[in-house]
Amino acid sequence: MPVITLMTDFGIKDGNTGVMKGVIWGICSTAQISDLSHLIPAQDIREAAYIFARSVPYFPKGSIHVVVVDPGVGTARRPMAAQIGDWFYVGPDNGTITGLLERAEQEGWQTMFVELKEKTYWLQTISYVFHGRDIFSPVAAHLANGVPLQELGTPFDEPVRLELPKPTRTDHGWRGEVTHIDHFGNISANIRVEHLSDALQEKERILVRLSGSEINGMVNTFGERPIGELVALIGSTGNLGIAVVNGNAVQQLGTKVGDSVEVVYT
Amino acid sequence: MPVITLMTDFGIKDGNTGVMKGVIWGICSTAQISDLSHLIPAQDIREAAYIFARSVPYFPKGSIHVVVVDPGVGTARRPMAAQIGDWFYVGPDNGTITGLLERAEQEGWQTMFVELKEKTYWLQTISYVFHGRDIFSPVAAHLANGVPLQELGTPFDEPVRLELPKPTRTDHGWRGEVTHIDHFGNISANIRVEHLSDALQEKERILVRLSGSEINGMVNTFGERPIGELVALIGSTGNLGIAVVNGNAVQQLGTKVGDSVEVVYT
Amino acid sequence: MPVITLMTDFGIKDGNTGVMKGVIWGICSTAQISDLSHLIPAQDIREAAYIFARSVPYFPKGSIHVVVVDPGVGTARRPMAAQIGDWFYVGPDNGTITGLLERAEQEGWQTMFVELKEKTYWLQTISYVFHGRDIFSPVAAHLANGVPLQELGTPFDEPVRLELPKPTRTDHGWRGEVTHIDHFGNISANIRVEHLSDALQEKERILVRLSGSEINGMVNTFGERPIGELVALIGSTGNLGIAVVNGNAVQQLGTKVGDSVEVVYT
Repeated sequence: MPVITLMTDFGIKDGNTGVMKGVIWGICSTAQISDLSHLIPAQDIREAAYIFARSVPYFPKGSIHVVVVDPGVGTARRPMAAQIGDWFYVGPDNGTITGLLERAEQEGWQTMFVELKEKTYWLQTISYVFHGRDIFSPVAAHLANGVPLQELGTPFDEPVRLELPKPTRTDHGWRGEVTHIDHFGNISANIRVEHLSDALQEKERILVRLSGSEINGMVNTFGERPIGELVALIGSTGNLGIAVVNGNAVQQLGTKVGDSVEVVYT
Repeated sequence: MPVITLMTDFGIKDGNTGVMKGVIWGICSTAQISDLSHLIPAQDIREAAYIFARSVPYFPKGSIHVVVVDPGVGTARRPMAAQIGDWFYVGPDNGTITGLLERAEQEGWQTMFVELKEKTYWLQTISYVFHGRDIFSPVAAHLANGVPLQELGTPFDEPVRLELPKPTRTDHGWRGEVTHIDHFGNISANIRVEHLSDALQEKERILVRLSGSEINGMVNTFGERPIGELVALIGSTGNLGIAVVNGNAVQQLGTKVGDSVEVVYT
Repeated sequence: MPVITLMTDFGIKDGNTGVMKGVIWGICSTAQISDLSHLIPAQDIREAAYIFARSVPYFPKGSIHVVVVDPGVGTARRPMAAQIGDWFYVGPDNGTITGLLERAEQEGWQTMFVELKEKTYWLQTISYVFHGRDIFSPVAAHLANGVPLQELGTPFDEPVRLELPKPTRTDHGWRGEVTHIDHFGNISANIRVEHLSDALQEKERILVRLSGSEINGMVNTFGERPIGELVALIGSTGNLGIAVVNGNAVQQLGTKVGDSVEVVYT
């Protein structure tokens, strides 16, 4: 059974994400549909790109991922579908795929981008303001039914990309920034396990600085330290994380996405 | 695979909406189940009716829609199932179907209403306070299995209806009221595309008044105006909408459901 | 089609619960997956145990329930799978199953507990901090595919149990405590229909005391009393409940989980 996910900034109170599922099942009745998140902050394409890049690789080959964080809906921005490695993206051409695309280029995965033009794969009536329902959901369902990507429109080469911040090497470590704060108030930075690599052999010699606090030494997991203690660790997707054991690091530190994070090898 | 949706005021923290799915799959293991919303404000049948009417037509023919916003649970209010056009409703007879029923009458769709009485299609033990689990979910699952509507109980003619406010024609336009506020803080009114029809040929001559503000001219979509600007447009279900581009109109205007909205042809 | 549920304290904004579904469908593409709750308060195993015990019996035989409220992730706490009556649990051995296990013992249901050890049923790479994705979801999917419980690891006898508070008999009734507060602000206590049994023949003679208030007489359902009135009734899972008709009892009374509740036969 084909797998389709939905990610939007629509929230979950108004029925709109349910409607997208209705449209999909009307075209592909066997689709397995999962919500990825509908609480992306309004118009926050960067947050969508971050969750998209880290989540999609855990889905089966051929799965189709509809993302609608779309401040430009109804304007000239391109509606698109893409193959990135083993997975498909359907949504606006606004940079949402940037993170996964960078990974595809590192890994040598195949990519293909198509501007959606074939209206036979859309709903009959297209509103100006809800392309998630009228264009992207039906296109995803037709992809799930086996319609080839190139039948949906016209291939193109350069999708819009966000400038995602990259960490920089310093004399004694790395400087990066906060890229995500999760439901628990745990903090993720763009410094990754690959950057720290050898230094992780001596976790106790790594110093992490952010928001005016210092954490001496890194741990493998929360339970290694007492409740309430601030810890640094490698999170589940390979990013440097900062957390309070059974607590809320963001409440304690006042950290925001974009804040500076520094790693020093002592 | 049959499609069932769930809409309630139960929230999503207590497991009750999951339990309804468990009951359904115990009877119809192939059902595709989608949440429509579980954040209907407590006991707000009007909000449920609004989302029901605009969402259901996007679901496949034969889909079954369970709605449990049910302040009268366990009292004399009728439990019911209905066919309205191509779709089925299962829930209390409390007016939730009003909006879709009005549309059915305009469009000449077939309707049938049945008071639920056949306990063979219910769970064995019926609580006083959770008919969503004990009556409506199992009935929906049996409908999905192909049990005819009329086997579930006794047909009746006049389901309960809400008095939904209608817009009125004025000398120079229309006067209506706010019917819904969405996750983004966008405002919907009961003035619809059909009311404005010809006037929409000259969008720039339409003036919209609400909450002490005036909007001169209507647009097709958000991106036609700068971020932060108040705009009026036709929303995705044909209702007059008022929004702030990439912002929150309700926060800016202090508007509430029920507030007056006026359209003037200048 | 096999049924799997997910319950976590992960929230719903970060994509992690979607990722668990992706992992499951990669192994068992036909699984019907329902969220039970992802808003368990962080690390609140007792709340998870409460919802688990009351929800699971409404799911079909053979259904598999993944619960990840796991402050000990990555430490020495056992990862486990269990059969409890007709249902399966997959998650940490931390007491989450206590309530259902007590019921199994009362009812004489079969139980079996296995420490997860067979890494062929896990993802290839195991993070320290997201066993929900790396261990529990794939194990649940393999169970859904028919892998026998005992192939997943080593049987053991004494799973961790929480000390769940029990009500005590008083001279003229029962004393218990508040165990759950739901989305509506309705209050549940650990005093159950079985405790009150004969007394319920004369509901009007039962007095309920909590948070400095007294409720004289019990009702069957909310609609028997005027809006705004405080009522006591038997909730949908057999527990004593206290509610305000169409209102919020917790806001009115200031009650918290753990507060004392008293029933007096007058």
